[in-house]
Amino acid sequence: MNRRQFVGGLAVAARAAPGVPLINSARLRTHLEELSIFGRPEGGTFADGVSRVAYSDADVAGRAYVRKLMEAAGLKTRIDAAGNMYGRRAGADDSLPPVLFGSHIDSVPNGGNFDGDVGSLGAIEVAQSLQEAGVTTRRPLEVVVWQNEEGYAFNNGLAGSRAAAGHLDPGELDAVWNGMKKSDAIRKIGGAPERIAEARRARGSFACYVELHIEQGGTLEKAGIDIGVVEGIVAIDRWDVEVRGFANHAGTTPMLERQDALVAASHLVVAVNDIVRREPGRQVGTVGQLNVSPNVPNIVPGVVRMVVELRDLSAKKIATLGEQVRARAREIGAQTKTQIEMRQAAHHDAALATAEVQQSIEAACAKLGLRHQRLPSGAGHDAQMMALLGPMGMIFVPSVAGISHSPRELTSWQDCARGAQVLMHTVLDWAAR
Amino acid sequence: MNRRQFVGGLAVAARAAPGVPLINSARLRTHLEELSIFGRPEGGTFADGVSRVAYSDADVAGRAYVRKLMEAAGLKTRIDAAGNMYGRRAGADDSLPPVLFGSHIDSVPNGGNFDGDVGSLGAIEVAQSLQEAGVTTRRPLEVVVWQNEEGYAFNNGLAGSRAAAGHLDPGELDAVWNGMKKSDAIRKIGGAPERIAEARRARGSFACYVELHIEQGGTLEKAGIDIGVVEGIVAIDRWDVEVRGFANHAGTTPMLERQDALVAASHLVVAVNDIVRREPGRQVGTVGQLNVSPNVPNIVPGVVRMVVELRDLSAKKIATLGEQVRARAREIGAQTKTQIEMRQAAHHDAALATAEVQQSIEAACAKLGLRHQRLPSGAGHDAQMMALLGPMGMIFVPSVAGISHSPRELTSWQDCARGAQVLMHTVLDWAAR
Repeated sequence: MNRRQFVGGLAVAARAAPGVPLINSARLRTHLEELSIFGRPEGGTFADGVSRVAYSDADVAGRAYVRKLMEAAGLKTRIDAAGNMYGRRAGADDSLPPVLFGSHIDSVPNGGNFDGDVGSLGAIEVAQSLQEAGVTTRRPLEVVVWQNEEGYAFNNGLAGSRAAAGHLDPGELDAVWNGMKKSDAIRKIGGAPERIAEARRARGSFACYVELHIEQGGTLEKAGIDIGVVEGIVAIDRWDVEVRGFANHAGTTPMLERQDALVAASHLVVAVNDIVRREPGRQVGTVGQLNVSPNVPNIVPGVVRMVVELRDLSAKKIATLGEQVRARAREIGAQTKTQIEMRQAAHHDAALATAEVQQSIEAACAKLGLRHQRLPSGAGHDAQMMALLGPMGMIFVPSVAGISHSPRELTSWQDCARGAQVLMHTVLDWAAR
Repeated sequence: MNRRQFVGGLAVAARAAPGVPLINSARLRTHLEELSIFGRPEGGTFADGVSRVAYSDADVAGRAYVRKLMEAAGLKTRIDAAGNMYGRRAGADDSLPPVLFGSHIDSVPNGGNFDGDVGSLGAIEVAQSLQEAGVTTRRPLEVVVWQNEEGYAFNNGLAGSRAAAGHLDPGELDAVWNGMKKSDAIRKIGGAPERIAEARRARGSFACYVELHIEQGGTLEKAGIDIGVVEGIVAIDRWDVEVRGFANHAGTTPMLERQDALVAASHLVVAVNDIVRREPGRQVGTVGQLNVSPNVPNIVPGVVRMVVELRDLSAKKIATLGEQVRARAREIGAQTKTQIEMRQAAHHDAALATAEVQQSIEAACAKLGLRHQRLPSGAGHDAQMMALLGPMGMIFVPSVAGISHSPRELTSWQDCARGAQVLMHTVLDWAAR
């Protein structure tokens, strides 16, 4: 039987775990399909992906839909001051710190229907299945849908979980992002920016945080593995680079007299790629954003602004790589008669998953007969903020062809269901402790 | 005496040319300053440059101002079907083909107050000075202000002179440029796109075409030369390049599995620069426009579109350089697992100036005691279209520091006046033939 098929495999495997309710995989699929409508391209289908950028009208509508799902699952919902959406389920001992689990539903522009959605709707599915099975856990449960995880435009993502961890930047609420002042944006989604500090969670305010998410890389699918047990989330350094040359007429300025900012920037893009590739390891380096000014065919470019991003589980390694890029930038500036300024725009520490949560996930996989493997997460996740406050773990499900942040992002329905079932087991394990 | 000073040098030199009226250099300056208001940045001064993009409201207002200047100079004005602005002065034998002279007043975005303006207002100044001196020439005179010379956004410039030369592209009037359908844009400036063929001029419909213009390079100023006698206008090849990689998550996509369109494009930008520089000669090559998609820091770029431009007096030379760039693009595509498509978007032939017009300009300089030098024009000009129809020549005046297409574009008032005086002599010479 094809393991990518929707029906069958999960139900068989789950029989091996008595006492733990089965999630409803058909309902999870329906919810994922229904959520995909909010931000869907005009006239498109599920396969055309989604643009549900944080704070957009689509995001607001998607959140309203998700809140209704929470309520249907018997969760008591609230929006915190930062705009994060919580749904609580009482425990037998409701004074204990809850098990916290969830993800996000905002997307990059022109993104896919699995990133964030699987973990958010998977968490609600766990709650609804527990309700239907009449299970009361010892600890209370809290489902969370973080606001603005993607924050694609600059150092702006993980906004809701950063607020919860007390890691908002000074002045961040006054900054304008995507045409909106962030405080206004938070108000738009039901938050109260003037009381943002109330969104902060204390250390020990949860028993553990678990997040189900798609891998977004191709490792699991290539190896035929069902579940990834995340070891940790990589550290990220982000650099804003400005290359200043001199704009002049492209016909009348001799080659030797040019100070072409794009030629200099191009040397630097190539250098970033070379520097990152020439050492062994899983580190990555990217120039994803580059803007030329004035950007017309008959003018030698005067200014180029770009963003360099470096990632690895070792913060020291990317710091060293960053230094190498800076050194090369100085050489390129001298050779091209341009000025290259690199300013560190963001640093996210690596966040290691807690050993006991990893073991709990592995135990769930073993009970369910699912193949599993430990691996780092190259992508940032809200989980890294929760790791600052208490035990953290993440469950990865395979991404077909490793494609993500794209309409072609895909995880089989069966893998979505398997991930949610592993989440169910892990949550119950921690809720009983 | 400092030769860059406004007053003095011209008047002294001009005494050596009896029978030829002196242009009014103070009035020319005033007109240049007044025209600069249309498209001036909010709250700026003359030194802050101008954004008088073709068909913009600023362009329409500037054209109305210039038309009034033409009428004050005794010229009989008309707008042709393409939107070019003509002002005619009758000759003693009014049936003869006129001497045609002028330039343009549209600018690039964030451009300067000399490119085009000096030649347009210099031409009107010649007409007004002739009127005041009561001179009647044998041939009629026609001053012309061409519409949309800059056409900065793509293969779109020289629009008015191309219409006059019958060199509009099929379907060009239906194309949208800068948010406006071109036929609507032409209508906006008083043209009649449905009768555009009427704007076409016949071969032999003028005795010669003379255009005064700033050099836009630094050759004349560096050599201490007053007047450049243009040998010809370089050929231009413009290539639209599309680099297609695959957009994916910048954290989760291993370096070896990437198809990064920006890394490929950067190699190509560097290659264009290297290929153009490694051969002796005055050829230039530029990537002035480059756009990344999706252009966010945490996504490996999927598509890059850019424009490669090559210029030289020899069309054969730039064709060879273009072939070398294509060959390198094929290699880069293979090495980076991207597809690079190069499509020739434009070719402008080189246009050689007519020997007799060059000699006439040189004779004027000799009479006026001005230092002069022959040189090619690296920039395209409406003159190249007129060269298709009859004798053509261009008069260049020095650009301070070679800066053009920039608010810092500068030509001394004295050099503006000297250029206009040389234009006066040249026009009178040809009007008498």
